[in-house]
Amino acid sequence: MLKVGYFQFRPLFGQVRKNLVKVLKALEQVDADLLVLPELAFTGYYFSGREETAALSEDPERSDTVDSLVGLCKARDMHIVTGFAEKKRDKLFNSSILIGPEGLVHTYRKLHLFSEEKNCFDPGDLPLQVDEVRGAKVGMMICFDWIFPETVRSLSVLGADIVCHPSNLVLSYCQQTMLSRTLENGVYAITANRFGMDKRPHGELKFTGKSQVVAPKGVLLNRAPSQRTQLFVCEIDVAAARDKSITALNDIMGDRRPEFYDALGK
Amino acid sequence: MLKVGYFQFRPLFGQVRKNLVKVLKALEQVDADLLVLPELAFTGYYFSGREETAALSEDPERSDTVDSLVGLCKARDMHIVTGFAEKKRDKLFNSSILIGPEGLVHTYRKLHLFSEEKNCFDPGDLPLQVDEVRGAKVGMMICFDWIFPETVRSLSVLGADIVCHPSNLVLSYCQQTMLSRTLENGVYAITANRFGMDKRPHGELKFTGKSQVVAPKGVLLNRAPSQRTQLFVCEIDVAAARDKSITALNDIMGDRRPEFYDALGK
Repeated sequence: MLKVGYFQFRPLFGQVRKNLVKVLKALEQVDADLLVLPELAFTGYYFSGREETAALSEDPERSDTVDSLVGLCKARDMHIVTGFAEKKRDKLFNSSILIGPEGLVHTYRKLHLFSEEKNCFDPGDLPLQVDEVRGAKVGMMICFDWIFPETVRSLSVLGADIVCHPSNLVLSYCQQTMLSRTLENGVYAITANRFGMDKRPHGELKFTGKSQVVAPKGVLLNRAPSQRTQLFVCEIDVAAARDKSITALNDIMGDRRPEFYDALGK
Repeated sequence: MLKVGYFQFRPLFGQVRKNLVKVLKALEQVDADLLVLPELAFTGYYFSGREETAALSEDPERSDTVDSLVGLCKARDMHIVTGFAEKKRDKLFNSSILIGPEGLVHTYRKLHLFSEEKNCFDPGDLPLQVDEVRGAKVGMMICFDWIFPETVRSLSVLGADIVCHPSNLVLSYCQQTMLSRTLENGVYAITANRFGMDKRPHGELKFTGKSQVVAPKGVLLNRAPSQRTQLFVCEIDVAAARDKSITALNDIMGDRRPEFYDALGK
């Protein structure tokens, strides 16, 4: 059994250090193997443009924020997946990083940018990948990636047992659709959303909370309230994500007919 | 505007002629452009094996059933999509046929066979395709194809505005997931399910009804009761399936990143 969960909170825009301290404090006693934090958990979300994004982003390989999270992972013997504003030379990515007691394990860069993110970030340029955490295969995607069935599907074909999904959702469609995603792929999905608002001179956005953990076959294990902080951890059996049978004669991954899916490459 | 809908009814197992007469009678006054009937609408569903399937199947190019339906399409100036047990030389397919006033337009052969269908039918061997009906692009899939996101996605990439979905559903997951399918692809979906039971010496199956028409963005336009006959037709605006924008900066088809979907071909 693996202890997995999320921390739903309200980051303050631009207050990287304050947000980090809030997370470190909230998780200092946590008992988990894998914990997911929201998208852009330390910078906040609603950047005015590329310049401001650059000013608040960090290279995760030289980041005080990441170093502190690695310290937390060491202290609690755990892994964290968190959204992270990534600066890499002249590029800026809306990224998700997997961190463990040994340090930074893997960086995923959001493939499908939402709305004005296109004015602040470069589109992801790395292939989807799964990593191993205590025997479980873990994939990452970020927020709006949910609407593209190819994202969870690709991670599942690559062997993912658990899809970690840092989010800053402003719409309300995602949570229900993630039940379909876990049903069609037979995986666990952890959506860690934020709540509260980013009130900026150029506009404001309200985030919708309702972080959730879903088990294979669309079984909702827990959903957070909309506008409240919640740290949630539960035990899951990874074996349930490896049994892809839906009847005695059907295996939802084995029954795929990739030779008829040419259109998907278009 | 296009008038589309479904006819949900209870086929009697093995009574091809009786089922045909029921359909012809029910639709003799219908005012529709495109009407969808359930999977295996004339033979019934729960075959004992390949031999019985062969005995009840027809070649749609030499079929009294199809000829009668073409007559109906002529009389009502409409198109029909219906499930059809197809015999082609030594092969048997769980098929869906598109029929118009001019005759048989296109045959789709179910790509993803469910449970004991594997003992009765050959797996589909034709590419997914869309056909034009009165200016609308129409794709077909059958029942269990719904759980594979690749099916509706492929039809959508090929330009489908409307996905016709003859079904004989025995589980209850599909209807909700079809809302996700129309949301993620921005298409209309017409699921025509049957109700009642196939009571056979080798076992019995109960079908779940709740046929439905869903508009792009997951909007349920109508859902039938579980265990009652229903003929339903509504007007839809095909243009809504061609607007794939979800924000001013996002187009759910245009924002796909096929160069990162290599895993889907595996």
